[in-house]
Amino acid sequence: MKSEREIAVVLLSGGLDSATCLAIAKSETFDCFALSFNYGQRSGSELKAAKNIALANGVLEHKIIDLNIGQFGGSALTDRSIKVPERESAGIPPTYVPARNTVFIAYALALAEVKNASAIYIGVNAVDYSGYPDCRPEYIKAFQEVVDLATKMSIEGRKIKLKTPLINLTKAEIIKKGKDLGVNYANTVSCYQADFDGLACGKCDSCRLRQKGFFESGLVDPTRYK
Amino acid sequence: MKSEREIAVVLLSGGLDSATCLAIAKSETFDCFALSFNYGQRSGSELKAAKNIALANGVLEHKIIDLNIGQFGGSALTDRSIKVPERESAGIPPTYVPARNTVFIAYALALAEVKNASAIYIGVNAVDYSGYPDCRPEYIKAFQEVVDLATKMSIEGRKIKLKTPLINLTKAEIIKKGKDLGVNYANTVSCYQADFDGLACGKCDSCRLRQKGFFESGLVDPTRYK
Repeated sequence: MKSEREIAVVLLSGGLDSATCLAIAKSETFDCFALSFNYGQRSGSELKAAKNIALANGVLEHKIIDLNIGQFGGSALTDRSIKVPERESAGIPPTYVPARNTVFIAYALALAEVKNASAIYIGVNAVDYSGYPDCRPEYIKAFQEVVDLATKMSIEGRKIKLKTPLINLTKAEIIKKGKDLGVNYANTVSCYQADFDGLACGKCDSCRLRQKGFFESGLVDPTRYK
Repeated sequence: MKSEREIAVVLLSGGLDSATCLAIAKSETFDCFALSFNYGQRSGSELKAAKNIALANGVLEHKIIDLNIGQFGGSALTDRSIKVPERESAGIPPTYVPARNTVFIAYALALAEVKNASAIYIGVNAVDYSGYPDCRPEYIKAFQEVVDLATKMSIEGRKIKLKTPLINLTKAEIIKKGKDLGVNYANTVSCYQADFDGLACGKCDSCRLRQKGFFESGLVDPTRYK
């Protein structure tokens, strides 16, 4: 337990994982800044979901940053000429966005330093996930080393800890944890190609992982499908 | 020596160091993408300089990315309420921009992966420098670990190398090296508070390091002062 309120930056996509992550950060008694990115992702409803989640959690501030990695191309999430796959396949899927988490964590670090935060929460998960390289524990561990060397704060002896409370949980375990903390999953959007009202396709990788998670958790899936 | 042309992403600020770095990348037979950032820095002339340098070096493309770290505040380079110091002081100066190089390298990594580059050149220097934490060799070494784990390319066995050819050179050595490679230093702007025409103040940390470098190199300083 901490003797006084500390500050955390929480990466908030609007999906199930990051919403749970924000609830966990709050339960660990952090005052939170939520940080979201507009990087040309197909699903505009994600950001709408992120806004609702931030509001429902009473964050200190919700920052939405316009990014330009989408313009580099190379991903089915930002480049409409690449199709979102609707069944499982081997290897890293075309929905991978080059260096996405590296850019996200870099921004979170900048905000954490300016706001004097002592933690950055990231809802990465390496169990029920899409196989992205930048969701693995060894990646986060390496980035912690960068964080420990990158900042003026670190030289002054103040540490920023990268926290990944979901990294070893199954999707069902994440959902159960979130339910215990009062997360309203009807507010979250997981689908890679949801429409603007948040209606999900039910077919993409992310939808399938979510469905499997709700099924295995034994809880009701509040997702609205097209 | 490489058997075929390889591709590099070169971070180009418009200053003396990055201009030299680009010339070195070219001399090491890379085809180069130049990458610059508009992050609310005081000196708009930096980006004008970067454009001229990119043009003079025949890069494949010069990308200028609008960043939002400036809006976080916390630095004399982006926040006009904080004064740029005009004499040397102990510790990390107020011109430090939180997590700047971390954000820059993250973007360079995204571009490198999309363009299938095998190197990222960064003109950081840990000899005649301002004491920024994210210019030190241990920081770059830690980031190389992140790069090796972050990307789809890395999982496929293709490596991206962070190259810092200036890291152990004095400013005078950098200038001599650049002169040998034909860098026109009149095109570069180092001053933290140059005016739009690139006229330098001659007083800030960056101006003083540049003056010392030219003095010690024995070469003529083409900088235009206010």
